[in-house]
Amino acid sequence: MQFGSDNQTGASPQVLEMLVEANRGFLHGYGDDEWCERAAKDLERFFGCSLKVYFVATGTAANSLAISCIIDPWEIMLCHHQAHIYQDESTAPEFFSGGGRIIPVSGSAGKIKVCHLENYFKTMGNEPPHTPRTAALSITQTSEAGQVYTPGELAELCLFAHNHDMHVHMDGARFATAVASLDCLPADITWKAGVDVLSLGATKCGALAAEAVVFFSPDLAETFIHRRKRSGHLVSKGRIFGAQFVGWLKNDHWLELARHANRQARRLAGELTRFSAITLQWPCAANELFLTMPAKLSTLLHDKGAEFYEWPYHGLPAGVELSADEVFVRLVTSFMTSDEHIDQFCVLVDDFFNSGVE
Amino acid sequence: MQFGSDNQTGASPQVLEMLVEANRGFLHGYGDDEWCERAAKDLERFFGCSLKVYFVATGTAANSLAISCIIDPWEIMLCHHQAHIYQDESTAPEFFSGGGRIIPVSGSAGKIKVCHLENYFKTMGNEPPHTPRTAALSITQTSEAGQVYTPGELAELCLFAHNHDMHVHMDGARFATAVASLDCLPADITWKAGVDVLSLGATKCGALAAEAVVFFSPDLAETFIHRRKRSGHLVSKGRIFGAQFVGWLKNDHWLELARHANRQARRLAGELTRFSAITLQWPCAANELFLTMPAKLSTLLHDKGAEFYEWPYHGLPAGVELSADEVFVRLVTSFMTSDEHIDQFCVLVDDFFNSGVE
Amino acid sequence: MQFGSDNQTGASPQVLEMLVEANRGFLHGYGDDEWCERAAKDLERFFGCSLKVYFVATGTAANSLAISCIIDPWEIMLCHHQAHIYQDESTAPEFFSGGGRIIPVSGSAGKIKVCHLENYFKTMGNEPPHTPRTAALSITQTSEAGQVYTPGELAELCLFAHNHDMHVHMDGARFATAVASLDCLPADITWKAGVDVLSLGATKCGALAAEAVVFFSPDLAETFIHRRKRSGHLVSKGRIFGAQFVGWLKNDHWLELARHANRQARRLAGELTRFSAITLQWPCAANELFLTMPAKLSTLLHDKGAEFYEWPYHGLPAGVELSADEVFVRLVTSFMTSDEHIDQFCVLVDDFFNSGVE
Amino acid sequence: MQFGSDNQTGASPQVLEMLVEANRGFLHGYGDDEWCERAAKDLERFFGCSLKVYFVATGTAANSLAISCIIDPWEIMLCHHQAHIYQDESTAPEFFSGGGRIIPVSGSAGKIKVCHLENYFKTMGNEPPHTPRTAALSITQTSEAGQVYTPGELAELCLFAHNHDMHVHMDGARFATAVASLDCLPADITWKAGVDVLSLGATKCGALAAEAVVFFSPDLAETFIHRRKRSGHLVSKGRIFGAQFVGWLKNDHWLELARHANRQARRLAGELTRFSAITLQWPCAANELFLTMPAKLSTLLHDKGAEFYEWPYHGLPAGVELSADEVFVRLVTSFMTSDEHIDQFCVLVDDFFNSGVE
Repeated sequence: MQFGSDNQTGASPQVLEMLVEANRGFLHGYGDDEWCERAAKDLERFFGCSLKVYFVATGTAANSLAISCIIDPWEIMLCHHQAHIYQDESTAPEFFSGGGRIIPVSGSAGKIKVCHLENYFKTMGNEPPHTPRTAALSITQTSEAGQVYTPGELAELCLFAHNHDMHVHMDGARFATAVASLDCLPADITWKAGVDVLSLGATKCGALAAEAVVFFSPDLAETFIHRRKRSGHLVSKGRIFGAQFVGWLKNDHWLELARHANRQARRLAGELTRFSAITLQWPCAANELFLTMPAKLSTLLHDKGAEFYEWPYHGLPAGVELSADEVFVRLVTSFMTSDEHIDQFCVLVDDFFNSGVE
Repeated sequence: MQFGSDNQTGASPQVLEMLVEANRGFLHGYGDDEWCERAAKDLERFFGCSLKVYFVATGTAANSLAISCIIDPWEIMLCHHQAHIYQDESTAPEFFSGGGRIIPVSGSAGKIKVCHLENYFKTMGNEPPHTPRTAALSITQTSEAGQVYTPGELAELCLFAHNHDMHVHMDGARFATAVASLDCLPADITWKAGVDVLSLGATKCGALAAEAVVFFSPDLAETFIHRRKRSGHLVSKGRIFGAQFVGWLKNDHWLELARHANRQARRLAGELTRFSAITLQWPCAANELFLTMPAKLSTLLHDKGAEFYEWPYHGLPAGVELSADEVFVRLVTSFMTSDEHIDQFCVLVDDFFNSGVE
Repeated sequence: MQFGSDNQTGASPQVLEMLVEANRGFLHGYGDDEWCERAAKDLERFFGCSLKVYFVATGTAANSLAISCIIDPWEIMLCHHQAHIYQDESTAPEFFSGGGRIIPVSGSAGKIKVCHLENYFKTMGNEPPHTPRTAALSITQTSEAGQVYTPGELAELCLFAHNHDMHVHMDGARFATAVASLDCLPADITWKAGVDVLSLGATKCGALAAEAVVFFSPDLAETFIHRRKRSGHLVSKGRIFGAQFVGWLKNDHWLELARHANRQARRLAGELTRFSAITLQWPCAANELFLTMPAKLSTLLHDKGAEFYEWPYHGLPAGVELSADEVFVRLVTSFMTSDEHIDQFCVLVDDFFNSGVE
Repeated sequence: MQFGSDNQTGASPQVLEMLVEANRGFLHGYGDDEWCERAAKDLERFFGCSLKVYFVATGTAANSLAISCIIDPWEIMLCHHQAHIYQDESTAPEFFSGGGRIIPVSGSAGKIKVCHLENYFKTMGNEPPHTPRTAALSITQTSEAGQVYTPGELAELCLFAHNHDMHVHMDGARFATAVASLDCLPADITWKAGVDVLSLGATKCGALAAEAVVFFSPDLAETFIHRRKRSGHLVSKGRIFGAQFVGWLKNDHWLELARHANRQARRLAGELTRFSAITLQWPCAANELFLTMPAKLSTLLHDKGAEFYEWPYHGLPAGVELSADEVFVRLVTSFMTSDEHIDQFCVLVDDFFNSGVE
């Protein structure tokens, strides 16, 4: 009953197999090897365009390195108030950007909307060098609230951003589940919509540790190799990343993994929302559920071995207040979430509500 | 009719005189001189306590150096959403703190209240090292909206902060006008209320370029001399700051200057609020007026040579929306604001409303 | 004939096997898992003491994170003029330390000696805050010139350092080959000699990507978790590091790998020094050879598929000047260097000198 | 008998007078005033070219801001081993440049020579992104050893630098005394020789606190205003700098002050070198003397009220070793050094040698 996070699994068998295969023999270090080359080509096919791609081990590194390429130390990046880069990556964006600023703009919505950006620009001062310039927007796809931006929504946001001289970064830690949810092409929600640079995460969806920073605007990548090296993110045995991505991309493996995760989330949501004391605070769109439930139920589930986390209240929709005996939690499914995990969990919930303990 | 800013004057005659006197002769460099020593002693008398004090040329340097002593690069400082450190000092706090984070908390109030802090802590996550720790609070006195925190309000904020392991910084760019407004002792709104470190600005109230970073908790100052030196803020001819502060403090000169500025602001407010089309958005508490007026009036005043600035809308109280033909402006008085400045200005306003141009 | 670097191999079979085993099942993220726990215990056994250990993916990360814990941004770390941290890791130490300074002190010796440190302190100024304080010393074991510090030499350096209020970092990217060369205990050349923090590299000696930052003075580690997180070096699937170290340490696997590498280097050195036109510039002490050879020979070897690099001249001993037709190269052996690699290489060399092409 | 430093004086009467005059009336803040405008024009006349100029309060700020405009955080600036930016400004260059690196290259010469640069490039590695790129050269005029670079020497250095894709910064803290010594035009030793950006110091030669960062290559200045603001170096009452420079430049006042300082240094040197136990370690070229003298003489002079400092041994020429009873000291003259100061000092020296105490 592991719904704690999609990073609590190992690699999928296919990804692991490729890693084992790549382990053999001598290869040049620092990413100058055939696996990285092959992965780069596979990614060009994946996105249907030419691009510049660099591999790193963590999402925080991918995000912060990308951000540091699109804001100067005296500039601002906007993001969702729940964004992982703002809430869960310490002050990494500030560190990598040399002291740039991250400002949240979403109100309490599950996705950033153009009106949030408009309101931001309406109220902020504009007196450089006193006021830092707003130079970038970061969008998370799948969103922080488990929501999915449509190609149209993204295009609208990117258009607004570009019209305001901002570059657009996408945090794609759960990019695969978004594509699976939208049943679209990777291109549709990236470069075709106007995204300039993407952190493409494989780790949460089947890899062990493999993230790609993908530049659709190659000129933005000019300083990347220096930033990656001096932040200690250029691994010597670069094949480790190349191999994982080759395995992840081969035969649309990533999509299969993502679809499974989404399917299990939908199933879980369907089961849980049968109970009126459980409220899904955001619609189930990909592989995360954000819901309120009785505190006693949460305790019981944890006692019985279920894994999931209480979630900070900044993740609640505007206006939602919890009663004293309620908790706000997040449940995450992954490629390893089996029907048994869900069945076991739901039996416990069922018992709880039927036992009258409630 | 100069109401643009209180930094558009030179030094007061008494401050200038002391600077001229201090110019004579040979003295040790880097603040190791009799003027700085005397200023430090005068400041201990001013605050009625022992303290550590360091001089710098600008408010931004004073604020950011102070902040860098109380937050680590992986920590957060809270401040008012209009705070000068957040809105008008580029990304200086991030630069000096090595990439710490500044988060605004005030909603749209003119002063930070304990409930803002409570709400912040209620909604934020707390999972170090993922979530940065909130380590400090910065309060601006006189506030960004021209309001003045009472000793009681400050004590309440500092108590809350200390109970949450936060240190408290006060941006006292207009500290003198706050003391004048409250008719209290400097101690009452600083160390007695719980403030740990103060940026005491003389520049906006009679000096040419003289700011003091005053540590009431001396252990916080441990790294200060290194931070000041490596940021280029240790001037070689240190007497320049010592002399200005000696002149500013002598015979309560600062208080006289501040009282004059406040008196002129009250007079101006009294005149302007006679007209229903002019609305003071925040009460006149010290030497700044924030008001909405017809755009045509603003244009006319500027055309006739009045100096004042339109102000960003983040400075408006919650819920206030401007109509299309209104502007939001700030008027600032200073020790040099004469009755003639005000009379001239008010005649123009009077004419405007009486002329029927409106 | 791969003598380019010991990072051109994959993982050893035993290390890989453990990684595959650890891939199974759900585990907590971010290093809070049984593999990391086990690796930490294994490392305490390895060093024969209690310690604090943190895992990262690269040597640059390990070194720079360690350094950032022992120098403040206004302080200096001394190192060998050839040190990897100074020559080959971009400006990572400056980045992680927030702008601290690295100063090389070795002259042209293969190892730092106490006299180098003495001379440094004799000539440098000491006027804080104008002059940055010298706060740390970094020693590389195996050294940059392929030399090995004896326990006695290290103890002498550490004593000098501690007497001058400096902490001591050891860059142990090739720590295993040093232990193998000295036939000592890991403790003898670390905490028993006075080393405060060690970057222990497994990557160059049998792992895929696994480095441990080992604090023998645990109070120095206080800020480490924040520094690792905000630099993007906290991987979510932490088992990846734990498993590699468990595999590397099990049954003294590391030692077996290191001994093999050293043995092959000695063999290669023995073969090559039979030719008077090849000069070993530093004695063969571990798994690296630094030598000068005819440029034509180097070209021929490369043409025939041998892998090795020309080396910068800062790696030459004092006073050595190359003639126009000579090159300075580095040859590195590893756990994968087979007798055939060496034989093939030596046949080519032999042929070269016997063919009269020379 | 003040020979401690040329920063131990106040402003010259003419500079002070201009500051007092500029104090009157209302002016726009932040350097947008008539004094700064006039100073900028005066500087264009001074250099005989168009330029971009920005004012700050300290030499450290001027140098580090300039440097941050010409090296990226992953790049290197070369300088003399005694350079003020390397020895006496803490780690300011690293701070402002976001962690760039400063490397000294001079050996023990009094000035940097092309051969030093050649040797540096010959021995250093060149493997980006592993090795940081060398992007700039900083020259100090008057040099750290009190020497003066001729226009020809500067042109040669700048040519070498530009041929190696480096920009050239000049630390002109004592620029005026260099011009006075060379009897040349300011242009001859700056843009005509190839200098890209100059820190022009007025403080050490007659101002109170006034330094100008002068860009002869205006495109290098693109980010300057942001860097100055976020480092707290944009003063609000900008007239303070404009006025000092206007006063300093008016009627070649600066030259008169510098010539006096140089003349007094020469006189002092002439007197002191009559004694064989006093050795001028570098020729007297401007307003600084670096000399060795008996320790007892130094003590006596200090006891009698003479001000001067012992100097770090890195300032000695190559090969010079002090005997146990000798000290190495620096004597500095300034526009305020009177004949009486020198006479008094020399009488004491005379007495010492004639008294037989020696």
